[in-house]
Amino acid sequence: MTLTDLTLVTRDEAAAPAAVACCGPLTRETISAADAEVFARRLKALADPARLRLVSIVAASDGQEACVCDLIEPVGLSQPTVSHHLKILMDAGFLTRSKRGTWAYYKLVPGSLDAAAAPLVTV
Amino acid sequence: MTLTDLTLVTRDEAAAPAAVACCGPLTRETISAADAEVFARRLKALADPARLRLVSIVAASDGQEACVCDLIEPVGLSQPTVSHHLKILMDAGFLTRSKRGTWAYYKLVPGSLDAAAAPLVTV
Repeated sequence: MTLTDLTLVTRDEAAAPAAVACCGPLTRETISAADAEVFARRLKALADPARLRLVSIVAASDGQEACVCDLIEPVGLSQPTVSHHLKILMDAGFLTRSKRGTWAYYKLVPGSLDAAAAPLVTV
Repeated sequence: MTLTDLTLVTRDEAAAPAAVACCGPLTRETISAADAEVFARRLKALADPARLRLVSIVAASDGQEACVCDLIEPVGLSQPTVSHHLKILMDAGFLTRSKRGTWAYYKLVPGSLDAAAAPLVTV
């Protein structure tokens, strides 16, 4: 190791002498780079207080479906902001939307929350 | 409803006449605003491909603890970038850090991933 190499690492985390075995064994498979991208995208869609509450309300509604009219007041945000969050949740595969009469209804995609939680319970 | 009111909502999501009952019953409790803030912060810390892979490697390591020297190469990022991600994971309560000799070791906080997944499996 040269001094130039050392400038790239902190003192705490500088490479040990080659004679020191640092690398512990892995006891199980880790997440692949491709899976990590997919999981991170899903979690990012949920990693917002308003979106968590919206999903929570939809999931707790009868048939896991809620009218948009039931979603705006509880989260205390404007309708355009709620619609923005709902779109992110739809794009990420957590909700589907259908229109019946005047109202739009948002339904939880079965299994989508379990799929999002999967990397956390299996890592 | 006046025309002024109508400009605040989209056509799809315009308020229905008062005579139409739109509000379905909730079948269980939903996440509170305060809990949503806490859960969202945790999920945000995990909602990154590199951080998911780092947590995954630590969790799969013997004793759920890994030397930083085992974390840099697998994720294919520079040491400063890996350290940045590790700090975010520590700040969010997923990892603790200790130094033994030359190396820093990162250990998974027991139960922290389950706590992060909780809102997804209970909503």
